[in-house]
Amino acid sequence: MEQTALMTEMGRDWDKFHASDIARKLPFFSRENRLHDCLFSQQFDRALLDYLFAVADRLRAVTQNKTGADTVSQLLAHKRAMLYFVQPSTRTFLSFLNACHILGLKTSEIRDTSTSSEMKGESPEDTVRTFSSYVDLIIMRHPTPGFVEKTAWFMNRIKRPVPVINGGSGKDQHPTQALLDVYTLHRSLPGGPEGKTIVMVGDLKRGRTVRSLSYLMKNYRGVKLVFVSPPQLRMEADILEFLQRHAIPYRETDDFASVMPEADAIYMTRIQDEHDQAEESKSLDLSRFHFRAQDLKVIKPNAIIMHPLPRRHEIEPVVDDDDRAVFWRQERNGMWIRAALISYIFGVDGQIPAPGKT
Amino acid sequence: MEQTALMTEMGRDWDKFHASDIARKLPFFSRENRLHDCLFSQQFDRALLDYLFAVADRLRAVTQNKTGADTVSQLLAHKRAMLYFVQPSTRTFLSFLNACHILGLKTSEIRDTSTSSEMKGESPEDTVRTFSSYVDLIIMRHPTPGFVEKTAWFMNRIKRPVPVINGGSGKDQHPTQALLDVYTLHRSLPGGPEGKTIVMVGDLKRGRTVRSLSYLMKNYRGVKLVFVSPPQLRMEADILEFLQRHAIPYRETDDFASVMPEADAIYMTRIQDEHDQAEESKSLDLSRFHFRAQDLKVIKPNAIIMHPLPRRHEIEPVVDDDDRAVFWRQERNGMWIRAALISYIFGVDGQIPAPGKT
Amino acid sequence: MEQTALMTEMGRDWDKFHASDIARKLPFFSRENRLHDCLFSQQFDRALLDYLFAVADRLRAVTQNKTGADTVSQLLAHKRAMLYFVQPSTRTFLSFLNACHILGLKTSEIRDTSTSSEMKGESPEDTVRTFSSYVDLIIMRHPTPGFVEKTAWFMNRIKRPVPVINGGSGKDQHPTQALLDVYTLHRSLPGGPEGKTIVMVGDLKRGRTVRSLSYLMKNYRGVKLVFVSPPQLRMEADILEFLQRHAIPYRETDDFASVMPEADAIYMTRIQDEHDQAEESKSLDLSRFHFRAQDLKVIKPNAIIMHPLPRRHEIEPVVDDDDRAVFWRQERNGMWIRAALISYIFGVDGQIPAPGKT
Repeated sequence: MEQTALMTEMGRDWDKFHASDIARKLPFFSRENRLHDCLFSQQFDRALLDYLFAVADRLRAVTQNKTGADTVSQLLAHKRAMLYFVQPSTRTFLSFLNACHILGLKTSEIRDTSTSSEMKGESPEDTVRTFSSYVDLIIMRHPTPGFVEKTAWFMNRIKRPVPVINGGSGKDQHPTQALLDVYTLHRSLPGGPEGKTIVMVGDLKRGRTVRSLSYLMKNYRGVKLVFVSPPQLRMEADILEFLQRHAIPYRETDDFASVMPEADAIYMTRIQDEHDQAEESKSLDLSRFHFRAQDLKVIKPNAIIMHPLPRRHEIEPVVDDDDRAVFWRQERNGMWIRAALISYIFGVDGQIPAPGKT
Repeated sequence: MEQTALMTEMGRDWDKFHASDIARKLPFFSRENRLHDCLFSQQFDRALLDYLFAVADRLRAVTQNKTGADTVSQLLAHKRAMLYFVQPSTRTFLSFLNACHILGLKTSEIRDTSTSSEMKGESPEDTVRTFSSYVDLIIMRHPTPGFVEKTAWFMNRIKRPVPVINGGSGKDQHPTQALLDVYTLHRSLPGGPEGKTIVMVGDLKRGRTVRSLSYLMKNYRGVKLVFVSPPQLRMEADILEFLQRHAIPYRETDDFASVMPEADAIYMTRIQDEHDQAEESKSLDLSRFHFRAQDLKVIKPNAIIMHPLPRRHEIEPVVDDDDRAVFWRQERNGMWIRAALISYIFGVDGQIPAPGKT
Repeated sequence: MEQTALMTEMGRDWDKFHASDIARKLPFFSRENRLHDCLFSQQFDRALLDYLFAVADRLRAVTQNKTGADTVSQLLAHKRAMLYFVQPSTRTFLSFLNACHILGLKTSEIRDTSTSSEMKGESPEDTVRTFSSYVDLIIMRHPTPGFVEKTAWFMNRIKRPVPVINGGSGKDQHPTQALLDVYTLHRSLPGGPEGKTIVMVGDLKRGRTVRSLSYLMKNYRGVKLVFVSPPQLRMEADILEFLQRHAIPYRETDDFASVMPEADAIYMTRIQDEHDQAEESKSLDLSRFHFRAQDLKVIKPNAIIMHPLPRRHEIEPVVDDDDRAVFWRQERNGMWIRAALISYIFGVDGQIPAPGKT
């Protein structure tokens, strides 16, 4: 009852809602103790992470044979999803699209606003509501910060609420990327992230993946973080304060070579010069933040090398042949964890058969 | 036999066919007393309207649960549709696409001629025939007046005729929009349109939706029409003559406020300045033809407010929260009535299970 | 074992591989005596051609009724395909897409690099590997000569090899077009191509379809070829030498009218001025290489007229009504033979039910 009252109140005024603390917002995007919308990486606690990882593991195992794959592709065969990707994206789009197809969801795509009614002067809110008229799930990437959240907020006000999944909004949130990154740490590191040293390299200032990943480390005991970047691209203060508050040890350096030997996981990132306004990155010598074939001799035998992809020159292609290079598996993990998330949102996660039981 | 002879004759010469009276054309687009192609709103008589509404009602009811939805999605799982939308369209495209998916049709999309063989100098007729080679149904929107009709005419001449559904051609015909509008009157007005006063507002001169809707009112007894527009954008003479001929009372005014209280249905439209050649609409004060929150106090308690969408400023967004604002339901009705139409064209309408029987 | 060693060696160095003789490459793209990738028309020998034709015949026959079509659409319902078409293409794209849908494959499309990560500076190899992460089959058309081959070569090196089908690469290879052309000769000529006179007309110099088709004629006894073109657009020397080596009789002429009466099959082609660098074709009188209604009186009663489409003015539209004009059936054959090829690559060709057995 209390939550309902809160939701009613916060549901009336977007500006008030938007300015609220994230903890106050979260109940608004859940129903019956289950995520209804996936908007922020803050929505994932340890129990939910572990559960979704188990669902993803089960999905990929049971779909190894045709019988299992056919069963899974019936789970949501009665549902339809809309992928509304206004910004260019290959990998996130395809990952979601194929996650939908694994579960049997029928899909519609809007990937380009030039084919859209927005040309006729329609408001973005009306456009999204139109999409919701035809489907049961909206997955969206949008350049306007906060617009995905606003969509979910808005959808929860109307009579036919349709779940919204954030496929990347502005430069702030990309929760399913965070999810697949932690899932990769969970799968590829023996014992998962606990007690491990995770080295993040590159543009830590603007890379939303390293920000989310740092945040989610609060869910694991004994994690040590090392941030490797040029001085101009250091991790922002808000994350550092968060880590201090949660007693997660970290240190910062611009000497990548010196920290390689202690890393359990190395998370490489691209310098995102499409977000670069001052053009500062162009004058940097970035080669010191690259991972080369010769570095394979230096890192631990069980270390893993991650990258959210796409890469430019951060990792030499020959590194891909080493078993410790897990970034291609990381990419594929994204499809499975997204399928797990969608099955969970629709409440069919309990119907995924155990491997060998089909 | 006679019809066959007529069809043979008219099938030879497009110009002769095109210039014929519409009544003479209709048999050409039917087979075994059933629509084969859906091109004109003149193809719908009262019996067919009522039947399609019943099919749409049954489809939406039976698909409420998974068993029903799964059954329906098998009905046309062996068929493939092509959506050929050369003009920008979000809503009509998505509505048809999801209607296909509800019935299990596999879909192909061409939404942009730049990816097309038209670049290689192919004729439009060859392009469409190519599409027909791969699919069992063509749904098309095309800017060239008469081209959708020509496509259907042409398809009926070849050995592998594929049904054609008009998703909007030029500024003249958009029959499934007319269908969903009448379906909305049928669903949302107690007793349907009969005996009701329907007020149409905005650009009546160029809006094809209000033209088709006016035409279809001949199927209902006791309907009164009120046309509200600036003098420059009055309903065209051909429709007014049609109404006189069928003894359907109408009147024209530019005073929206004065007619609000008597309306059972208010059909708002956008000023279509993308069709505006003389730029006359820019100099008009359109605010007198808008519906505002305060107007909700004036209209009947059971009145309904419709809009073909997208809207600009014709209806204040806060109006959406009122139960009498049915335009979002109208949009969704479009998907269901299109699914009903497609199931009817393929003759599987009789196989839709009754709700509760799956 | 030997093949494995060879593959290991050739798998290391793309440049060495690429420069190898095609016969040495072929084993690299097969697994367990079955095509794994379809890249070159040289991969088809007579036994494989005949087998694929039989599979295609069976597919089209069994899918005539719903039960058969439903069965076939379950065969690969657990698989996902990516259609990566960087170059404009309507017909090949739709043909493959619907071939996938016939077999139940779920599909993802990339038809425009502007939505792609290539914008973010990713290498083409990484882009393609990303696609492979999400799907079980890649069908691609790419303007860069050799890139489709390189993709398949690369995919076979990694741990999760995904079959690659060439949908047209540069101006050299388009093996499924060759396949559908021979399939059309097989279906539409009584007794197939053996002992027949095949007349190829138009731009023989740059048309890859006529080049592949000429090559594949080595699989049939008694074929005679006649090449009809302007002197500037004669068949290239490599194909003529190939024909001499295999004792396939041919002759060249620029007098189309003189050879019409002896043709069993006339293969018309378009002057591909999009490949035209010297603009030489604009100064040619091409009308002598067109097929007109009056020519129907001259050709044999059982002759067939083919065209890879799209056409411009090479064939008068009224010719389409003649039963000997098989180019629309040829187009449709493309969808069926591609479905056959895909079913074969996945090894489900043996599971297609015989007509009447569903």
